[in-house]
Amino acid sequence: MRVGGRWFRSVWIEPGDTRVSIIDQTVLPDRFEVARLGTLEEAADSIQRMRVRGAVAIGVAAAYGVALAMRDDPSDAELERAVTVLGATRPTAVNLRTALDRLRSGLAPIAPAERAEAAWAEASAMAEGEVADCRRIAEAGLPILREHIERKGGAPVQVLTHCNAGWLASVDWGTALAPIYLAHDAGLPVHVWVDETRPRNQGLLTAWELRQHGVAHTVVVDNAGGYLMRRGQVDLCLVGTDRTTRSGAVANKIGTYLKALAAHDNGVPFYVAAPSTSIDWTMDDGDAIPIEGRSPDELGFDPEIPVENPAFDVTPARLVTKLITERGVADASEAGLAALFPEAR
Amino acid sequence: MRVGGRWFRSVWIEPGDTRVSIIDQTVLPDRFEVARLGTLEEAADSIQRMRVRGAVAIGVAAAYGVALAMRDDPSDAELERAVTVLGATRPTAVNLRTALDRLRSGLAPIAPAERAEAAWAEASAMAEGEVADCRRIAEAGLPILREHIERKGGAPVQVLTHCNAGWLASVDWGTALAPIYLAHDAGLPVHVWVDETRPRNQGLLTAWELRQHGVAHTVVVDNAGGYLMRRGQVDLCLVGTDRTTRSGAVANKIGTYLKALAAHDNGVPFYVAAPSTSIDWTMDDGDAIPIEGRSPDELGFDPEIPVENPAFDVTPARLVTKLITERGVADASEAGLAALFPEAR
Repeated sequence: MRVGGRWFRSVWIEPGDTRVSIIDQTVLPDRFEVARLGTLEEAADSIQRMRVRGAVAIGVAAAYGVALAMRDDPSDAELERAVTVLGATRPTAVNLRTALDRLRSGLAPIAPAERAEAAWAEASAMAEGEVADCRRIAEAGLPILREHIERKGGAPVQVLTHCNAGWLASVDWGTALAPIYLAHDAGLPVHVWVDETRPRNQGLLTAWELRQHGVAHTVVVDNAGGYLMRRGQVDLCLVGTDRTTRSGAVANKIGTYLKALAAHDNGVPFYVAAPSTSIDWTMDDGDAIPIEGRSPDELGFDPEIPVENPAFDVTPARLVTKLITERGVADASEAGLAALFPEAR
Repeated sequence: MRVGGRWFRSVWIEPGDTRVSIIDQTVLPDRFEVARLGTLEEAADSIQRMRVRGAVAIGVAAAYGVALAMRDDPSDAELERAVTVLGATRPTAVNLRTALDRLRSGLAPIAPAERAEAAWAEASAMAEGEVADCRRIAEAGLPILREHIERKGGAPVQVLTHCNAGWLASVDWGTALAPIYLAHDAGLPVHVWVDETRPRNQGLLTAWELRQHGVAHTVVVDNAGGYLMRRGQVDLCLVGTDRTTRSGAVANKIGTYLKALAAHDNGVPFYVAAPSTSIDWTMDDGDAIPIEGRSPDELGFDPEIPVENPAFDVTPARLVTKLITERGVADASEAGLAALFPEAR
């Protein structure tokens, strides 16, 4: 997507560079800075500290992290170490595990001398695949936005989103924000209510993205969404997911569940943009998803104040109106997902 | 309540002083400072800027504000001006309006020369009445906490609260926190989950109060309550109210409604501590309660980021398990409130 006049992705390889480039999301929106990752350790540290964040983006960054490790030492032991180190950075998003499993199973049978190049190619293919899937999610979600606008006689569709599921969180386009960008590009009127998303304020990343793209938006505290929905100021909710179970439960940024409850209580449809790389086909029960607890420091309070800081919550499938995948819109159920992804059974 | 070794109220008259003393809640918990209000304008400004805040406390502070005005100029015109200026400070809490109506109707028939003394006496009587009511709310709520502890075999009752409905927000004791203080004083084990309560972080006032009193607590972001309830880590919610309709709907700090939804979805009882001074007997529909919109600056973001900042939301009576009043525990319904307050019909 465009930043100023230039096109960027959130994770990419600069032509001629041997490092992985990322937009440092810990300094946005105050500063736009690119970080270059040259080693496995730098990749793992950037994922853990959320310089690169978002389920899709950290999956791709982890794949590149394996490639960086293989360039330094393509041994079996280093491959295992890379998968272990990167896999330990963040527990909730399944994309990280899926990416690492894919790299490991692809590289293990290959001669060590060829592993670096293969890993690099595989990571790049994953990045391209994610971009293509996000673009398909944009197309699958667009008719939903269009229908609301038509029903409102051309007035802007009012979308509430939580956290950042934009192009920063994927590689390009985004997941939840992808249909919004496509709608805007098609000249459709969209206004986005952006939850600030404490404690890390990823809502400001969303606001920054929307501003770069020219999409109308208003930031509110996380407490405000229920009020807005009760007053009829939200037409639909649209969020991302860090892990979707095969029966359609969704782990996403802490607080998502509260917005899903408010949507349900007010008859507001609640959509989740879920690329298939976020679906954990091995898991049925959403409450089995491992929930990351992050540092109390993230709240920014005096250290003497006792704090707990869970980073995700689970929204049960019964509160999800539809999942928007790269193969189209699905019911949030085992049957709904199986109909679109029969090979996953 | 005690601060360090000394007893304080949040609004009081220092012996021999001609001013109204308040604890400046805009600098807590970083600093404990007492502010002295000598004029109507200082009283109104302190309410508007939330140096004194909380439905009960601003009602009492407004009453004292009228007394300050009457001391400077006890004319009819000044009485009207005082009521207008103070009434315009904050729209949602009904206590402010009730206090001003009471002062106006009490003072209007009195000779101007006697008004200052009468206003002062009336404001002081209101303060004492609120303290007595809060103490009765503590006693009415105590058995609820005790029952949970007994059901858990003596393990701490886990209470979630939103905003600050403690003694800072009333005059002494608090509303929602009053039963917690009484339980703690009775040796009962209580742990409080404290929502930070963006954008103004009144949760830090609650944490400060609880710390002063020795009550165990943990601060969480406003997004976390649903997660905690889904995991069975909350036994009950207990919050205050800025305006309760005669049918039991409750306007309280923005975000309260989201917690009530999560409590309902998880079978967690949701209690509201409601002194009768917070009940608006003229109002039936909660959605008719005027909701204050406050400055975007409160969010603390770069001014170029578009922001909306509603300060309260309405929780419908169907989500309120019981109201805890100074006359005991009531169903959140017209019949429930009428049974305890028959004279209000």
